[in-house]
Amino acid sequence: MKVEIITIGNELIAGRTLDSNSCYAAGRLVASGLRVTRITSIGDDHKTVSEALTNAVETSRFVIVTGGLGSTADDITNEIVAKALNRPLSPDKHILEQIESHAGARGIEMTPSLEKMAWMPEGSRMLSREGTAFGYSLIEKGVHLYFLPGVPDQMRYLMDRFVLPEILGLYKTLPVVRQRVLKLYGLDEPSIAEIFRELQGKTGNIKFGFYPHFPENHITMSLLGKDEPTVTEELDRVEEEIKRLLGLHIFAAGDQSMEEVVGLMLLAKNLTISVAESCTGGQIGHWLTNIPGSSRYFQGGVVVYSNESKVDLLHVLPETLERYGAVSDKTVREMACGVRKQMKTNLGLAVTGIAGPDGGAKEKPVGTVHIGLAVEGDVFSGKYRFRGNREQVKLNSSMMALDWVRRRLNGNPFLPGI
Amino acid sequence: MKVEIITIGNELIAGRTLDSNSCYAAGRLVASGLRVTRITSIGDDHKTVSEALTNAVETSRFVIVTGGLGSTADDITNEIVAKALNRPLSPDKHILEQIESHAGARGIEMTPSLEKMAWMPEGSRMLSREGTAFGYSLIEKGVHLYFLPGVPDQMRYLMDRFVLPEILGLYKTLPVVRQRVLKLYGLDEPSIAEIFRELQGKTGNIKFGFYPHFPENHITMSLLGKDEPTVTEELDRVEEEIKRLLGLHIFAAGDQSMEEVVGLMLLAKNLTISVAESCTGGQIGHWLTNIPGSSRYFQGGVVVYSNESKVDLLHVLPETLERYGAVSDKTVREMACGVRKQMKTNLGLAVTGIAGPDGGAKEKPVGTVHIGLAVEGDVFSGKYRFRGNREQVKLNSSMMALDWVRRRLNGNPFLPGI
Repeated sequence: MKVEIITIGNELIAGRTLDSNSCYAAGRLVASGLRVTRITSIGDDHKTVSEALTNAVETSRFVIVTGGLGSTADDITNEIVAKALNRPLSPDKHILEQIESHAGARGIEMTPSLEKMAWMPEGSRMLSREGTAFGYSLIEKGVHLYFLPGVPDQMRYLMDRFVLPEILGLYKTLPVVRQRVLKLYGLDEPSIAEIFRELQGKTGNIKFGFYPHFPENHITMSLLGKDEPTVTEELDRVEEEIKRLLGLHIFAAGDQSMEEVVGLMLLAKNLTISVAESCTGGQIGHWLTNIPGSSRYFQGGVVVYSNESKVDLLHVLPETLERYGAVSDKTVREMACGVRKQMKTNLGLAVTGIAGPDGGAKEKPVGTVHIGLAVEGDVFSGKYRFRGNREQVKLNSSMMALDWVRRRLNGNPFLPGI
Repeated sequence: MKVEIITIGNELIAGRTLDSNSCYAAGRLVASGLRVTRITSIGDDHKTVSEALTNAVETSRFVIVTGGLGSTADDITNEIVAKALNRPLSPDKHILEQIESHAGARGIEMTPSLEKMAWMPEGSRMLSREGTAFGYSLIEKGVHLYFLPGVPDQMRYLMDRFVLPEILGLYKTLPVVRQRVLKLYGLDEPSIAEIFRELQGKTGNIKFGFYPHFPENHITMSLLGKDEPTVTEELDRVEEEIKRLLGLHIFAAGDQSMEEVVGLMLLAKNLTISVAESCTGGQIGHWLTNIPGSSRYFQGGVVVYSNESKVDLLHVLPETLERYGAVSDKTVREMACGVRKQMKTNLGLAVTGIAGPDGGAKEKPVGTVHIGLAVEGDVFSGKYRFRGNREQVKLNSSMMALDWVRRRLNGNPFLPGI
């Protein structure tokens, strides 16, 4: 069941590109009950790639290799495979036709760079006979090697549609592995660690992981067992315990994001929302609209970066800005009420603050952020102080604002401010 | 000069966390003229970590290890180092005091989990005696090993302030390596590859890399030489050639983003901008406000997700929406003019489109996006069709909109639409 992942590309070891492919492949393999032992990133270099391939063939049952299959001069994976595994290259007629027809449809002329992509190592088997994502497999000394493109979408498509089903088809008696992720906001890692000590002795064979994902913290719990019901029941039991201890800080489970959770709550309660953003610059609207179907509850918003726009678009009173400043409870309340009224929504959410690096003062240092939430007949506001750089202050401001909506709709108190 | 990077954490090989630490460390090392040969990610497992450490000591001159130094139960790097390199753990009094004072300042009680962080392997030397980022170094058989926390900010801080200066201090005669990145928008990879064939024989010893970063494409050029002037001159010469061939598609160089380039142009020309976003939901405003000081040219914007808000906030004519639809040239022109007028800015930028997955129709399929740009006395609009999922359509829409501003301010034609 051991799987090794090798990602090839000078861009990876030079730190120019984040290796999201290995992360995706590992996630899919582990979720299917397989064990990833190692992820190795190496450059477009004959010797290093040869060594990594021969070493992987000796220690793993499956090897996933990504990168170097494209049309540019640095795409040399096939040449290296040919030499390292002694499998000469020859043109694959079918692939050549595919490339030609794809190029034709897009009005691109057929060129030697494109033709190069069709030269395949001996004994290789194409994963897909359709589409534009080329990848292939080889069996070497009983070890299955899969070669996938480095372009993330193509890699993911081939991984999900061909590689995983093939690997899983070879195993009929894989143990059941189930993993859950709980996402927390508003508690730091040492606090979580301490709260978790209370669970000692109550968690059986479940393995935990604790991961800061700024500004969130994630807890993973995984359990290996013989059958689905036993594993699920045990995870359910411990998840309940954790929820009892960490309660309101858990905002989502699994792949869900804060904006998805908030969106589902608004839908369920048949409520609409609008946002007035100052220091977050549009990030909250951007997040909310990442969710398909968000137009059912998100009406829109205003990005009121200047004082003038706060007055013109949201009818914030000039006296308020003059007396209390743009970053104040009074202003954020008027912003929340203003956007709610302008957009005719049930909820009006507002944020104003100082994202930095400039603009801070002694009484209002960088990171000072006010959140406002207008609901029918009522308006709430609070003040926070976020640490970190501009990007981090924006992230925390957007998260906190959405967490206010989540907590309000749940009937829970907001996270304490300053 | 060989450096190896090892990142430790079950979250990495289980695909739950993208390994941004190795990417950062590699980028900094390569930019300093060092050579990263391999990046290996492994789990919190005694045997695998031991093997990786002993192997790295045999093949590299420097080893950077990240992860597993925190306070939670899965942080076991120090224990493994102690066993694998035979260096028993003992408490470091100074670190203990640091932890206690840090915990005290934040009102956190001192606990065994926190105390564990102060137990260090024999012969280890703390990288920093101040602050809250703990990391240490060891010399084993002449090989320098650096152990850094997995929390990205702390890792980066220690890497830049202590690890890099120490490594560079050991080398007085490093060759000069210079790398440049050119960022392109609006040309696909095969087209770039073909255009590059014209450069054959004119690029000397420069090494090129071609990297799709959806929706951008990046070209890197790197050259190793004896002295700075020779290397720089040669890179300048070839960069000119590339610019001659790829011209307007190159929007930025180095670390610059599209929003930074646009921001600098607006500043230089003393112009202000506002945005009216529909399908991008606030992303353009979010990007523009990621740049410190953007309040000097970005006045704000509106996110008009609903038809009603387009009429109420931007005075788009109801007849326009009825006759041409929300996704049309006529609507986007009224949006651009409307936001420009409302926000009293020199430029008004507008986007409306269908991000999908739902909402498409035969005449207006998913991915149909209109861009509008209002300038003094004039308004431009264009229609595009972007492929991909919701996130990708949003990304392309925001990029294209900002590219319109860039091209307009440069006096160049917009990218052709449909």
